[in-house]
Amino acid sequence: MKKIFEDGISAEVSKINGYLYNVPELEIKENSPWEKVLEAEKYALSAGGKRIRAVMVVEFYKLFSGEISPPPQVYEAACAIEMTHTFSLIHDDMPEMDDDDTRRGKPSTHIAYGTAEALLAGDGLAILPYEIIARLSEEGKISPETAVKLISVLSKNAGNKGMIAGQTLDLWSEGRHEEIDEPFLRKMSKLKTGRMLIASCVFGAVLAGADDEKLRDAEKYAENIGLAFQIIDDILDVTSDASTLGKPIGSDKERHKPTFADLLGISGAQKEAEKLSGEAAGVLEKYPGSELLREYAVELCRRKF
Amino acid sequence: MKKIFEDGISAEVSKINGYLYNVPELEIKENSPWEKVLEAEKYALSAGGKRIRAVMVVEFYKLFSGEISPPPQVYEAACAIEMTHTFSLIHDDMPEMDDDDTRRGKPSTHIAYGTAEALLAGDGLAILPYEIIARLSEEGKISPETAVKLISVLSKNAGNKGMIAGQTLDLWSEGRHEEIDEPFLRKMSKLKTGRMLIASCVFGAVLAGADDEKLRDAEKYAENIGLAFQIIDDILDVTSDASTLGKPIGSDKERHKPTFADLLGISGAQKEAEKLSGEAAGVLEKYPGSELLREYAVELCRRKF
Repeated sequence: MKKIFEDGISAEVSKINGYLYNVPELEIKENSPWEKVLEAEKYALSAGGKRIRAVMVVEFYKLFSGEISPPPQVYEAACAIEMTHTFSLIHDDMPEMDDDDTRRGKPSTHIAYGTAEALLAGDGLAILPYEIIARLSEEGKISPETAVKLISVLSKNAGNKGMIAGQTLDLWSEGRHEEIDEPFLRKMSKLKTGRMLIASCVFGAVLAGADDEKLRDAEKYAENIGLAFQIIDDILDVTSDASTLGKPIGSDKERHKPTFADLLGISGAQKEAEKLSGEAAGVLEKYPGSELLREYAVELCRRKF
Repeated sequence: MKKIFEDGISAEVSKINGYLYNVPELEIKENSPWEKVLEAEKYALSAGGKRIRAVMVVEFYKLFSGEISPPPQVYEAACAIEMTHTFSLIHDDMPEMDDDDTRRGKPSTHIAYGTAEALLAGDGLAILPYEIIARLSEEGKISPETAVKLISVLSKNAGNKGMIAGQTLDLWSEGRHEEIDEPFLRKMSKLKTGRMLIASCVFGAVLAGADDEKLRDAEKYAENIGLAFQIIDDILDVTSDASTLGKPIGSDKERHKPTFADLLGISGAQKEAEKLSGEAAGVLEKYPGSELLREYAVELCRRKF
């Protein structure tokens, strides 16, 4: 099972990267100074990463459509999700936010291209997903109704009351170590990390034409793995080393940001993550063919980077 | 004529502001720290301004629909355009970009709320237009087809190959005074200012169900007034005073950015702006009821702020 699981995921990651590195809207054609922003965006998108969000789009599509080979529009929609995620990373790394000089072991976008350029590259990647989804509809690959649904899901989960609300809470929490308790941390994490995972799983379900119950289950699964993922991140931030993690370790502590590892202890946090991923897996038990997604939830808690 | 024109515009500006200050997605309900970002966005949106873009949405809707009182969704779509414009102003004013401490005589968003908060407020306003347009479709106020068309128009004109390309050229041009000629300045301005004006005029036309010829004419009008508008801005930057203009004068010169006023001289630039606004007015001559929009193009060249 383990081998089949890993091979399955890595085949999808390769396919996703193939689409992500060849987004037609980012092709550099004129060799003109304005295309510098495309270059910075491609740099940020190609920094790698686990592509968890894109994999979720693809796997939920497969689960609810019953198809083994999703059509290109599913991968293009998955790229739209990765772009939104990447835009937030570019802006998060900037000096006024987390001030991180490296991301996945490479210079952050603002280090490689300059802060103003990184600001614009983030803005470009914030808008591009909507252009791509509109194009998929104009090309007849998805219906206008599906396009509107995807745009609604993405903009709500990424926007002011989703990921951006989480980032706002994160900012607010700096230097307020004493005021932060577990419920606050849960709320922040559900917004900052969880909402984009919800968007990802729901994207796959919407593209597969899933009914309301399935949409709700996709959301529940996502909410649980999102929180588990954040807790594991916090544990790795104190237990891993920089070269494995690809970013400076202990960086949260340095900025006086309390983490789940602080509030629950390492082993308490690990237990909580395992409970959440078990709940995520449980949500999908009733669906035949959900083995990979259930395994994924469990594997998340074993990751070392 | 002049009085009717001014009264007509100012009535629409009041109506637009009424919608803009009461966008349901920006309502503060919980008094929670995450809502700080909504507060910053409302602050930036309420800084005033001429609302030219929103007025264009409304007036082009009126022209091509023949209706005198546009329905609410036209004003809501006009707000979406103002949000995109405002997001770009917030980010433009930030230290890594133009580093402007004031905007329309008030502290810029990053001065009033902090740079990290301004970054997030800009991000929030970059995404919100798509959420609003999707909602208009989900509420049945516009068709999914119209929603997709609006999203396509806005994302393309605001994004990497539109406004953001213009901002990228603007960044690149800093300190390159010698390399900048009039064709470059025209290209930059058409992207940076012109594209959002195109989106505005085309928005009104799309909402009115206009045919291809009308869409093209809306675009031509917008392109001409966009360039005229930028040229007048450049002239005012050297001839006006800070209190009339609401921002520091001579700021472009200070940053060694060449302007149309530098390259064409004040009177040459004024002549060019008048030529362009005459061309804009000419495009609409064949349409009965286009007096206000034609007058608007001419008035643009007489403005003092």
